[in-house]
Amino acid sequence: MKNVGYYNGEFAALEELKIAALDRAVYFGDGVYDVAFIHNRKPVDLDDHLDRFYSSCNLLKIEIDMTREELENVFLSLIEKADEDEKDFILYWQMSRGIGYRNHVFPDNRKPSLFAYIIPKKIADQDKRIQLITKEDNRFYLCHIKTINLIPNCLASEEAKKAGCYEAVLHRGNIVTEGSHTCNLIIKNGEIITHPLDNLVLPSITRKHIKELCIENNIPFVEREYTLDELFDADEILVASTTSVILAADTIDGKKAGGKNPELVKRLQDLYFKKHNMK
Amino acid sequence: MKNVGYYNGEFAALEELKIAALDRAVYFGDGVYDVAFIHNRKPVDLDDHLDRFYSSCNLLKIEIDMTREELENVFLSLIEKADEDEKDFILYWQMSRGIGYRNHVFPDNRKPSLFAYIIPKKIADQDKRIQLITKEDNRFYLCHIKTINLIPNCLASEEAKKAGCYEAVLHRGNIVTEGSHTCNLIIKNGEIITHPLDNLVLPSITRKHIKELCIENNIPFVEREYTLDELFDADEILVASTTSVILAADTIDGKKAGGKNPELVKRLQDLYFKKHNMK
Repeated sequence: MKNVGYYNGEFAALEELKIAALDRAVYFGDGVYDVAFIHNRKPVDLDDHLDRFYSSCNLLKIEIDMTREELENVFLSLIEKADEDEKDFILYWQMSRGIGYRNHVFPDNRKPSLFAYIIPKKIADQDKRIQLITKEDNRFYLCHIKTINLIPNCLASEEAKKAGCYEAVLHRGNIVTEGSHTCNLIIKNGEIITHPLDNLVLPSITRKHIKELCIENNIPFVEREYTLDELFDADEILVASTTSVILAADTIDGKKAGGKNPELVKRLQDLYFKKHNMK
Repeated sequence: MKNVGYYNGEFAALEELKIAALDRAVYFGDGVYDVAFIHNRKPVDLDDHLDRFYSSCNLLKIEIDMTREELENVFLSLIEKADEDEKDFILYWQMSRGIGYRNHVFPDNRKPSLFAYIIPKKIADQDKRIQLITKEDNRFYLCHIKTINLIPNCLASEEAKKAGCYEAVLHRGNIVTEGSHTCNLIIKNGEIITHPLDNLVLPSITRKHIKELCIENNIPFVEREYTLDELFDADEILVASTTSVILAADTIDGKKAGGKNPELVKRLQDLYFKKHNMK
């Protein structure tokens, strides 16, 4: 199979896979998810993604009944069933609070549902500069949990696409938070600056690795709020995610931006790919 | 069938009904919904609910491709297939942006998916006073759209249930907005007071009918922000929704509340039921 899906014990071609209509994912978006990259048919940084996934379940009080090993076995089965000539994939999995009649309160049957799939995928070309827009962050105050309540993110992404851009950078008032599906970082005077981890941003795994690499290599990594003015005035604007990895912008809202420290951008990208044996 | 379901052209027992895993409802909650009451096998206030539903689709840019008549025909088919001895039901329907590979931007195939069902249901006992809790409103800023991104609502409802209460009344800072799944209103000195219609509250159909009845009957109906202090100090605290209709509280956060104008509560309930030929 090219795209392989899984739902509560059954495997099928993703396009044929079906979900119970009474799954709380369907009518409440009552679930969490995570996404990992698979390189050479092996999940990358899976421990980090599983840590975050269990944390998401815990924060939403989804009583996950599968061990890490059981989850990993599902993922490995997906890979086994995928076409042999494909080496790199995106691995997606989500867990909802379970199946039951629609009622806002948690169901008596607390058995969560697992939906997972893999699709062949390459990571983004790191040398290509991207275009960004800015947009007011109108999301809820649970952005530290990787939930499937993603309407505002979809609307922001669509707005970016319509403007011919790669991503929308969100801000609450004057404070930049993150992208609609990426972490946001800026470079200024040799420092990497990004929003502190709180309930306004997702704890990005790529951000975590950038931070570790900065500490190991004596590159200043500063976690503090920064403003829209600082964003526009940055030496570089970076977006980071599992499949974007580290991309630098050359315009924002149609204005020239960043481009003043390409050496440090390249250094971060090289450190990241070397650490992950990916290039 | 007792509980009858429908998805994209197919009818089935709700418990057996299946949804495409690649429906954007499943992994983004990218859809809108509405709920109407069915009394004596006829939908109640269906025009109002359809107005709101088309408005929700429009606000989320879901390109609905069904006429009101086509939607109504699906609903009537659900009723036809339901057990004949059942007279009253809840009718639920949702429309997602459609089916496609997970990508935040809107899919090229813009054919939306319709999921609908009916379940036998009685409306709440209007004479029974309810218990409430208050809770900080941590939802997004699209609360005027009836979306299926409902995690904060589920968490608030569960918190209310755990406290032995019927509903959580949400507030942004000191300003009361609405309940986790109901409209909130207070009575003070003979006035009905409720939050103005903006992006912080859902345009409740029951609220609309209460407003119309107040105007027809010279009962002051005031749309303005009110504070937590005003809530605790109100003559009556009301929650309103399609299946709750109009319920009055007797405690909030464990403290005695309301109960000072039961005559006006009863009058509103009587006017509502008379208008709807429901009692």
